[in-house]
Parts: sequence; structure tokens; C-alpha cells
Amino acid sequence: MARIGFVGLGRMGGPMARNLLKAGHALKVYDNDPAALARFDDNRAEKARSLADAAAGAELIVSMVPAGSNVREAYLGQGGLIASAAKGTVLLDCSTIDVATAKEVAARAREAGLAMLDAPVTGGVPGAVNGTLTIMCGGDAATFAKAKPILAGMGRNILHAGESGMGQAVKICNNLVSGSTMVLLGEAFTLAEKLGLSARTLFEVMSTGTANSWILNHLCPVPGMVAEAPANREFQANFTSTLMLKDLRLAQSAGERSGAPTPMVATAISLFQLHANSGGADLDPSSIIQLLRGPAR
Amino acid sequence: MARIGFVGLGRMGGPMARNLLKAGHALKVYDNDPAALARFDDNRAEKARSLADAAAGAELIVSMVPAGSNVREAYLGQGGLIASAAKGTVLLDCSTIDVATAKEVAARAREAGLAMLDAPVTGGVPGAVNGTLTIMCGGDAATFAKAKPILAGMGRNILHAGESGMGQAVKICNNLVSGSTMVLLGEAFTLAEKLGLSARTLFEVMSTGTANSWILNHLCPVPGMVAEAPANREFQANFTSTLMLKDLRLAQSAGERSGAPTPMVATAISLFQLHANSGGADLDPSSIIQLLRGPAR
Amino acid sequence: MARIGFVGLGRMGGPMARNLLKAGHALKVYDNDPAALARFDDNRAEKARSLADAAAGAELIVSMVPAGSNVREAYLGQGGLIASAAKGTVLLDCSTIDVATAKEVAARAREAGLAMLDAPVTGGVPGAVNGTLTIMCGGDAATFAKAKPILAGMGRNILHAGESGMGQAVKICNNLVSGSTMVLLGEAFTLAEKLGLSARTLFEVMSTGTANSWILNHLCPVPGMVAEAPANREFQANFTSTLMLKDLRLAQSAGERSGAPTPMVATAISLFQLHANSGGADLDPSSIIQLLRGPAR
Amino acid sequence: MARIGFVGLGRMGGPMARNLLKAGHALKVYDNDPAALARFDDNRAEKARSLADAAAGAELIVSMVPAGSNVREAYLGQGGLIASAAKGTVLLDCSTIDVATAKEVAARAREAGLAMLDAPVTGGVPGAVNGTLTIMCGGDAATFAKAKPILAGMGRNILHAGESGMGQAVKICNNLVSGSTMVLLGEAFTLAEKLGLSARTLFEVMSTGTANSWILNHLCPVPGMVAEAPANREFQANFTSTLMLKDLRLAQSAGERSGAPTPMVATAISLFQLHANSGGADLDPSSIIQLLRGPAR
Repeated sequence: MARIGFVGLGRMGGPMARNLLKAGHALKVYDNDPAALARFDDNRAEKARSLADAAAGAELIVSMVPAGSNVREAYLGQGGLIASAAKGTVLLDCSTIDVATAKEVAARAREAGLAMLDAPVTGGVPGAVNGTLTIMCGGDAATFAKAKPILAGMGRNILHAGESGMGQAVKICNNLVSGSTMVLLGEAFTLAEKLGLSARTLFEVMSTGTANSWILNHLCPVPGMVAEAPANREFQANFTSTLMLKDLRLAQSAGERSGAPTPMVATAISLFQLHANSGGADLDPSSIIQLLRGPAR
Repeated sequence: MARIGFVGLGRMGGPMARNLLKAGHALKVYDNDPAALARFDDNRAEKARSLADAAAGAELIVSMVPAGSNVREAYLGQGGLIASAAKGTVLLDCSTIDVATAKEVAARAREAGLAMLDAPVTGGVPGAVNGTLTIMCGGDAATFAKAKPILAGMGRNILHAGESGMGQAVKICNNLVSGSTMVLLGEAFTLAEKLGLSARTLFEVMSTGTANSWILNHLCPVPGMVAEAPANREFQANFTSTLMLKDLRLAQSAGERSGAPTPMVATAISLFQLHANSGGADLDPSSIIQLLRGPAR
Repeated sequence: MARIGFVGLGRMGGPMARNLLKAGHALKVYDNDPAALARFDDNRAEKARSLADAAAGAELIVSMVPAGSNVREAYLGQGGLIASAAKGTVLLDCSTIDVATAKEVAARAREAGLAMLDAPVTGGVPGAVNGTLTIMCGGDAATFAKAKPILAGMGRNILHAGESGMGQAVKICNNLVSGSTMVLLGEAFTLAEKLGLSARTLFEVMSTGTANSWILNHLCPVPGMVAEAPANREFQANFTSTLMLKDLRLAQSAGERSGAPTPMVATAISLFQLHANSGGADLDPSSIIQLLRGPAR
Repeated sequence: MARIGFVGLGRMGGPMARNLLKAGHALKVYDNDPAALARFDDNRAEKARSLADAAAGAELIVSMVPAGSNVREAYLGQGGLIASAAKGTVLLDCSTIDVATAKEVAARAREAGLAMLDAPVTGGVPGAVNGTLTIMCGGDAATFAKAKPILAGMGRNILHAGESGMGQAVKICNNLVSGSTMVLLGEAFTLAEKLGLSARTLFEVMSTGTANSWILNHLCPVPGMVAEAPANREFQANFTSTLMLKDLRLAQSAGERSGAPTPMVATAISLFQLHANSGGADLDPSSIIQLLRGPAR
């Protein structure tokens, strides 16, 4: 069992920390929002007063924060995690951020004698709660080997994607496909509707042929096709168009820095932005069909 | 066993006609290209001298021609199939064409006392040769019931998609998704490459998660992932970017007529057009990754 | 003074016919919509009972109809203008249609011993009323020379763009630029607004520098910048998003047939389609800024 | 005459500094690249050994560096300009960077008792050499009044665009229009060529009508239309596709942060990226027509 400093107790980080406690680890938890820290009510955990306090005495540090700027601040700032962690501490950043920042922070950790993995997750709030996340790790093999048993307390599928930054890389490449596929399905079902083709027929043809996909089978944008789909409950969901925009923009910005054109992603981003501006921001991204279909008359 | 007039003996129509012969039907075959007609060397078939001759005495007529204008000409022209067929003949058009033309020709058939199905197919040349096509039919239920046993001689999965035009509608809605997915995969694997992420890792993450799709599992654009993929043989294939453009444009034009926006399809079309202009026209459409990746330096 | 058969008495054709009468020509007018024909109340004109009647005795025929299919019907149909016109008659089609149809109809006219120009116009209803249209002609030089004095009765700037089809070609190439520029200005002024930049400042910088354009100076999408702009009157206008869509789609379809990629046009079309579906169909196309800006909160 | 610290002696900054010397100001110049500093051979200028040295004793500081990260480093870093400048010094950043960084650095300057303008320029290297730049300033009116006479040594048109960040805002809004217009013209002239329409005819129609623009009149992508256009010299130019991409991405990222959709810009970026990857990176951006036209056969 390990002594873990845990930073970031939001909708994802909170349940992830609980699962580490459940797995028997000793946690010192921290959030720079005092309200979030106060809300975390599991008395098996000690509460840290600062990032430095969270790092003190930890064998591993796990972080789960919203964006690259937060990761930068938490790790690189004065009194931050890299400045505070003892040599040999393993740093695991589970946030979803841009590849460039992930690489830079890992390089700075290395300079300070610390090992680091970028370890973004998929599976959303339910995956965080149930400990069934997929966790994609970037960093060296030895660090991965050390971290894997700990990560197994939060996720089911823990994989090594390559060196630093490759955890983020594989997540954003994956999500550019899944997110853009939602728009494609929105276009297909909207076109079907306007042509007078039954959605049921289209679903059956697509799901048994060349247009089949995980997204179709789990997030079909027309109600009544797939039991679990947000379309059945007016697109109320844990994941949102705003979060989808974040992921697609990470792909776009990675393409920008590396010289990879991402024209379909660019189109998807424009559409999600239009959708977010006209009421879809907090709905499941499969609600993009609403933008394409237009307002009811 | 039925007496069938068969029109259009190209790369798809030829093997389809052979399968009908194999199933025991009596065929009078025709192609307005004398060379194509001459090439059809199965002596169980009688060769017709004209469309009218092909229609004479037929219980059913099957057609497989390249485009809507050919369907229009074959069915609506002077001495065409509708003018020549006896009352009660069933017309089965297996061509992939626009919904509007399919509906119009079926309406004209109805006025002439003929029953018609639009019955486009998927499965390509291999499906045509092996009789394993999927055939999507639009028209009334009684006609579908009559035609189904005949169509079963050419395909394995024969389905009724709705009224006239809906066979075409379901095919193009399906293909807008599958075709555009190829571009998405091209973007994802290009980005991976430029970021230094292994294609193998990306394939494994995508194929076991939210980015999984039929296209990924059969037409992965990076060699070495999927045995059958054209990427393994320099994108040599039966299906081509040019044919993909045709299908995507049918979706776009159906959207145009019906008021359904198709922005992702529009982006995919622009890219396939750029690709076709720079050497990709006759390659499998999964070769779109070549455009995105850019020329080797 | 010439004897002219005039076909198509809509919002454009009506005033164009009046201007020809005003210029002293003898007109036999026709519209296949009896109501439109009845509404044309200038008693200097004779009313024709049919296309054939309009063609009878005419030295020139002028047509102004909505789309390529109407041109095809009017000229190529049984009892149509080509069948009815006397040898030597000059045919002037002022409709805005696709290049392919324009070329085909002109070829059929030539076969019948008739000379034809495609002669689409710009300037809208005000230009039609005031006789200030620009008219772009495709056809041979001799026919252009014959037609020019007649066309001068309807427009101010009569130009010869090349052989058959080139009148249409130059119009759609021009309009793809002007129409898409409206979207660009919508993006620029929306971005300014969200950034807190004054529209007046942006207008002044753009109109005196590298972003200056005719569209900016006449159709600026923000009120108060340009006296005549539809933005000042809630985008009420003669020209509409629906008509803009028609022109942009002609460009797209010409690109499709000729192998010219039109990715910016494709994006503009998607946006105008989304806009038309959510209330912008009958507004001036500069109202596209409303889609980009999103609904007021 | 003022004592000025000048930072950044590249292709733009170098000639801008010379013009300030010519105007009679006393300059201490600096570049963190020793080679660039060595190359600056005007002996009226003193050479600084560091940013702090450049700031020492200056009444104004002018900077001209490549990107937001350089501005951040130069102004906010340890031993940077804000830390080193005496209270009351006026800071003028002429770099083209993102609005958010411009605002943040100005806020940090204010906290340190310094006044700052973001003051990006247009006019390129020729404008820098000839002192004919347009300079767009963001900041308070009093600072603008103080800075204007100095800026007049480098540019001809000095304008106040609003508060901090608005200099950058107006530049990127302007450039999103001018840059995207180049792509539109590429599409129009490519379509003309494929349709057989003379470029001369298209140029004449566009330049006298609704498609007219500054870009058409100065950067027409077809040779022989406009004397000064890079198309006449195989697109060799001072400004490049790579720099255009930088400006368009600043617009995109400003849109992203502020919630303004920029779909046309997104399409233009994808195309410039494809173009840059296939040989167009260092050509004038009007060379985008090469991508659209495709390789010669």
C-alpha cells in the first residue's frame, strides 16, 4: 500500500481518490478550491493545506485538474509539486491536457530527479465512480511498471502508450475520431429524417454494415435505438458538448504544432461551437443533431 | 424460375447477371455498349438487341448502370424499358443514384402500370461475384415480396427500407458515414505519426474503445494492422476515391434538395477532390491519408 | 426595333420586359403560370398563349426563368422554343443556371440552326427595374454583336465572357467570391464583438486596408457603418440567403463536374443552409452574422 | 527626442529600429540572439547586454518579437522588461500575438506602474523599411497620445483601436478576412480555369463588381493581372503561407477563447496547412491556388 498525495477533487478526481482509499492506500488530498476540499468527506483521507503539504512524504502523487494551465501551475509553480516532492517520487498526471505541456512538465520533473507519467483517462464520471476507467500512460517503462498497480485501483484497462506525452497523444487521437463520428451520425440521421427514411431502418443498416461504430451502438442520436443513449433522455449527460470541444481543440492544437492537418476536426469544432452558443453547451455531444436538424417550426 | 431482362453488364452487372443464371433464371441481357455485350460470354443467356428487346417477354427487369442519367435514359427514353415492358412486369433498378430520380422513375413506372423497386447494393465487385451483396429496396411491400426471391440470387441480405427512393436513401446515409469515417481515420493516424505515437498503439486503443468502427477493422489506413486492408497493398482496390466521391456527392445533393445540412460530408468531398486531383483517384478511398500526410521529403 | 418573344414574367423578368417595351421593342410575353401572365399589365405587350406562340414571328427570344430544369423544359421540350423558333432567331437566356445545361441547350439550338447566348445578369430587382443590370454573355462574337443593342435596353454593362456557357461561368465564379465574403465578414465582426473590439474601429481598419472589399462597402453586416446596407433594416432585402445558396451551389456543382475543389464554398453552403433552417432563409445573406453570433440570451 | 530601449532586431524589428534612429531618437538595442545583435550595424545605436540593460534609462521600450511566448518571456521573465523598467516608462509591444497574452502582459505592466500599448503592425518588411507601416494600438488614451509621435517614426497610419488587447484584436480580425479572401480567389480562378473561362475576363468582372477586393487588386493569384502581384514572380515574397497560418490561427484561438465560431477560417487553415506540407510554406499565401489547382499532369 502506498502513501499518495492526491490533487484535484472535482467530479472526476473526487471518486478517483475514493477508489484509491478503497484500495487501501494512504491519501493526503488537496484542492486549491477550499469548497471542493471541504466537500471531500471521506475520513480515511488526510487533508493537505497546500500543494507542498500534499507532496510531503508521498511516494506517488496523482493529479486530476481541468486544463494544461492548471497542470503547469500545480507542478511548475513556486511551492508546486515538483519543487516540493522528494527525489524518487512518482508523479501521475491524470488530467487531459495538450501533448506539449505534458512533455514539458515531464522534462522538468526529470530534471528534478522525479519520474512522471501523463496518464489521462476515459470513461467519464461513471468510470471514475466505478473504478472502470481506461488509463493511457506516457513515460518510461520502469515508471509505468511502478505506477500500474496503483492505477489499477482507479481503472480497469491500464496501458502504456509510449514515452512522455504519448498518453495524451493517444487519448486525443482516439477522441477526435469518436467526437467527429457523433457529428457524422447527426448528419446521417438528419438527412434520413428529411428524406422520409425511418431512423430504425437506417440504424439497422448501419449497425450491421460498413457504417457501424461504437458511437452508433452507444450514443445513437435518435431516441429508441439504443437503451443507454442520451438521446433517450433529452441529451442529459455527464459528458457535454463543452468537454467535447475541449478534446477536439486539443487535437487541433496538437495538429497545429506538429504539422498535421485536421480538416474534419475543424469542421466538427465549428459545429460544436455553434451548437454550444445556441443552447447545447451542457448537453451530451450527440445532441449535435439538434443543430443540424434546426429548430422545430 | 423467372424470365428476366437484365440491363448493364459492367464490372458489377456482369457477375450479378451470372449469379442469376446460376440460380436457374432465364436471362435476356443487354448493354448499350456493344463491347460490354460481346464480352458477356455465358451462353445460358440470350443477348438482346435493344432495351425493348430485353424487356420483351420479361417477368422482371433488373438494371445496373452507372448514374441517374443512365437510369433516366434506360427507363424513360423513347423505346425505353417503361415504354416496352408488359403491364405487371416488375422493375428492379440496382444502380446507385439520387433519391429524386429514383422516386421519379418509380412514379412513371406506376403510371404505366408497372411495379418498381430501387434496389442499390453494397459489397462491391467481390460481393457481386460471390453473390453476397446487401440489397436495400425501396417500393411497396407486395413488390418487395415478389422481388425478394430473385434478389436472393444476387445477394445475401435483402432488406426493405421503405417506399420508393428509400433504398437509395438508406444507402447514401450509410455511405456518408462510412466514407467520412475514412477521412477521420486518416486524420487520426496522421496526427499520431506527427506526434510520434505508434500506429499500433493507436489502433489498439481505438479498436477496443469509443473510436471503434467497421471501417477501422476492415480499412485501417496504416499497413500491418488489419489483414485485408488496402493499406497493405498500396491502396490498390476495387472501390476507389472516385466512386467514394460519387456516393458522398449523392448524399450532399440529397441534403441540398431536402434541406439537410451536411458540413462534414462537404469537408470530406473537398478532401477527396484534392486527393483525386493529385494522384489518388483510382486508389482505395482509405488512401486519403496520403493527402493528409503530405508528400515524403 | 425588334420583335421579341419574352418568356418568364417573375420578379426579375417582369421589369426586364417592361424596359424592353420602353426601349421601343415589340414584345409577345409569356409565362407558364397564368397568374404571372395576367399580372403583367403593360398593354404595349401582346400576350402569348404558349411557348410556341411566343416564338412565332420573333427575331429574338429572351427568357428569364428560375432554374436549369425550367430552361431545359422551355427550350428543349415538345412545343418548346427551339422547336418553335424560325431559323435565324437569336435566343437569349438571362436565367442563372448551371454551365453544363447552358452549354447543352446552346448546342441543341445550334443543331436547329439557331444562335444562342447564355446571358445571366447581376444587379437584382432594383437593377432589373432601373435597367442597370450587368449582363454577362456566353456565345459567339457575331451573336453577341447582334444581341448587344437589345440587351442594352435592360442593362448598363453588357459584356462578352467567351463561348457558350461562359456567361454562366463568370457569374458563378464572381458570386462564389462575393457570397463567401459575406460569411468572412460575419466571422470577423462576430469575433470583434466577442473580443470587445468596436465594430466602427474594425470597419475603419478593414475599409482602408488589406481587408477592403465591395461587400464590406455595400453590405457590411453591422448596422450604422454603410448607409445602404441591409443590416440597417434588419436584413430585409430583395436578395436572400436562399438565392445565395442557389448561386453557391451552382459554383459547387460546376466544380464537381470540372474537377475544381471548392472547400470554402462548401463551408459557406453549410452555414447558409444552417442559417436558412433557423429563420434566415428570406433575409439578405449578410444576415449570416446572426448564425455566427448565436441567439441573444 | 526620446531615449528608447529596442528589443528584437529581426527582419521587421531591424528596419523599424533604424527608422527610429533616423527620426533622431537615442536607441539602446537588444536581441537575445547574439548574431542578430551583431548584424545590427548602425553605429548611432548603443548595444545592450541584456533586457535589463536595454530597459535601463529608457523613457520608452519598443519590442518586436515572433510570438506570444517571446513577449511573455521578454516582459514577464526574471530580469525581464517589466522588472527592469523604471516607473513611468512606456512599453510598446509591436509583435503580433494573441489577445489574451497582450491583455495579461499589459495588466502586469500596470501593476508595476508602467503604461503599455499592444501595437501590432501591418505592411510587412517593405513597410518596416520605408516607415510606412500601419500601427494598431490597444491601451489607454493618454499612453496612446504619448506614444503616437514615437510610433510615427516607424509608420504612417497610427490608430487607437481601444483598450489593451484591441490592437491585436483589430489586426487579427482584419487578417482573417484578407487571408481567407486569398483562398476564395484561389477557388474562383481555379474553377474558371477548369471551366475554360479566361482569367482576364474573370478578373475584369470581379474587379468592377461585387467581388472586388484589395486582395484581388494587389495579390491576384493569376499572373499578368496586377503588376505587383507575387503570382507574377512564382509567388516569391516577403510574406509567406507560414506567416499567414500564424495569423489565421491567432484568429481561431481568439475565437475559441471568446466563443466566436470561425468556420471559414478553419477551412482556410486546413488548406494552408496542406499547402505548407506540400511545398508552399515559404511562398506568398496567394500561392494557395497551387493546392487547389493540383499538380500539373
